Amino acid sequence: MFNRISILGTGLLGTSAGLALRAAGFTGAITGWSRTKEQVHIALKMGAIDTVATDPIQAARESEVVLLSMPIFATLDFMAQLSSQLTPDHLVTDVGSTKRLISESAAQLYNKPNCPAFLPGHPMAGKERGGAALGDADLYRGAVWLFTDDPSARRTPRADELVQDWRNLVATIGSRVIDLEPARHDELVAWVSHLPQFVSTVLSALLEDEVGNAPELKDVGGRALREMTRLGASPFSMWRDIAHTNTEAVERALQAMEQRLAHLRENLRTPELRSEFDHANRFRRE
Amino acid sequence: MFNRISILGTGLLGTSAGLALRAAGFTGAITGWSRTKEQVHIALKMGAIDTVATDPIQAARESEVVLLSMPIFATLDFMAQLSSQLTPDHLVTDVGSTKRLISESAAQLYNKPNCPAFLPGHPMAGKERGGAALGDADLYRGAVWLFTDDPSARRTPRADELVQDWRNLVATIGSRVIDLEPARHDELVAWVSHLPQFVSTVLSALLEDEVGNAPELKDVGGRALREMTRLGASPFSMWRDIAHTNTEAVERALQAMEQRLAHLRENLRTPELRSEFDHANRFRRE
Repeated sequence: MFNRISILGTGLLGTSAGLALRAAGFTGAITGWSRTKEQVHIALKMGAIDTVATDPIQAARESEVVLLSMPIFATLDFMAQLSSQLTPDHLVTDVGSTKRLISESAAQLYNKPNCPAFLPGHPMAGKERGGAALGDADLYRGAVWLFTDDPSARRTPRADELVQDWRNLVATIGSRVIDLEPARHDELVAWVSHLPQFVSTVLSALLEDEVGNAPELKDVGGRALREMTRLGASPFSMWRDIAHTNTEAVERALQAMEQRLAHLRENLRTPELRSEFDHANRFRRE
Repeated sequence: MFNRISILGTGLLGTSAGLALRAAGFTGAITGWSRTKEQVHIALKMGAIDTVATDPIQAARESEVVLLSMPIFATLDFMAQLSSQLTPDHLVTDVGSTKRLISESAAQLYNKPNCPAFLPGHPMAGKERGGAALGDADLYRGAVWLFTDDPSARRTPRADELVQDWRNLVATIGSRVIDLEPARHDELVAWVSHLPQFVSTVLSALLEDEVGNAPELKDVGGRALREMTRLGASPFSMWRDIAHTNTEAVERALQAMEQRLAHLRENLRTPELRSEFDHANRFRRE
């Protein structure tokens, strides 16, 4: 097991990772860095990290494992910077929500002789609001943690060990590991993650226009309305990168949703409505 | 306070009403009836009702207050049958999800000299699955209970007392009463209740086609996916009546949703995406 990890990006996911590692008995050093000083000091106070790094590249160099927990474009930037600064015995991994571009970058800059190692990861966990203060040692418990590793990666034996250590740690903190190809990953999350998010955003924005100025009437919708609009609170900063890096798959999913809504609208008084409910019921069968 | 109530329809809402009345200290007689024998016997076993009625009309005649807790068209049928069987000192109330047709029927057949009294009601509470066995004394706690009473109703002083008793009981079991005009009610619930339901049904049906045959991949979506599709389990039997009795308002809401989804799809890579997220964030502001 490795002894030194640096967490670059101590928002919700990074801080929760530090807390979860500690709760799982990880006794090595955890160094944290954030673009926002406030966030890294909250993470320190919460015990998610031991030390605050001022230079993220230096912190990475002094670690065995580097966790990039930041939005996708920032992850791609750090991948490029770190690739020339680390040795083949360093492992870099990430938590980015789309994996095609990140896996392409990993194939170019990592996982080759004389290059550091990279393991593309994506924990399906989060909250509708971000930030270190919401960090939670149990955030990853029961969640799926996806990896889109490259079977043709060439790594040193030490880097292979670090990959296995990290996969074991992810299981130890309560996540279920699933391996996917990067393109299949992005197609799948377009349906089960990005589509639900954008539907909730659109529903929330529409309702803001229709009933937003009558706050007591939001209560009328009760639990169902609260659940269907909870993701409406999600931050643009994170979803912009997803929209930019998985555009075609998200477009396909959104268009299918529009067409199916129109189909239901045109069949509110026909037997076809029953068929749509039966179909939906099947998705929710136990 | 009245002493005899009959609950016609002992599904989730009727059974929960009986349990809530008892928990709130109501000591009168509660008679139950259901088209499905099994349901009324579950309600009896749970203590939601004291006696099982074999003839719902007879049970209503022997009560002071009659609660119709059944789908909308069945409610309209019972309203017609009961109007000629009850006295002006009887109060009938309901829990139907749309109120325009029910309020029109109430104005024709009730609330006039020599006619029984009717108070149209709609508790904004439920679960994604129905049935007496899910009955819950706390179902209405914290929920909004809408009434669409007719200010020109002419009732006996005794019926006026029963209306006040029922409104007080609804508050006692933990619901917040809001009064609305019937047309405004149906327009409002099209946005905050029916639109979220149909969106969830369509999303669930679509995902059943796309990922339904890979059950482990549903887990990838996590809590967000579970919440956005929970209403996908809702029964057609209830929603058919809503689709048939609030068609125009639901069509308008669905079409607005389709257009706004298309707008977001066309702007996945433009600054307009930020504006939609900002708008959605405002709906969820505390």
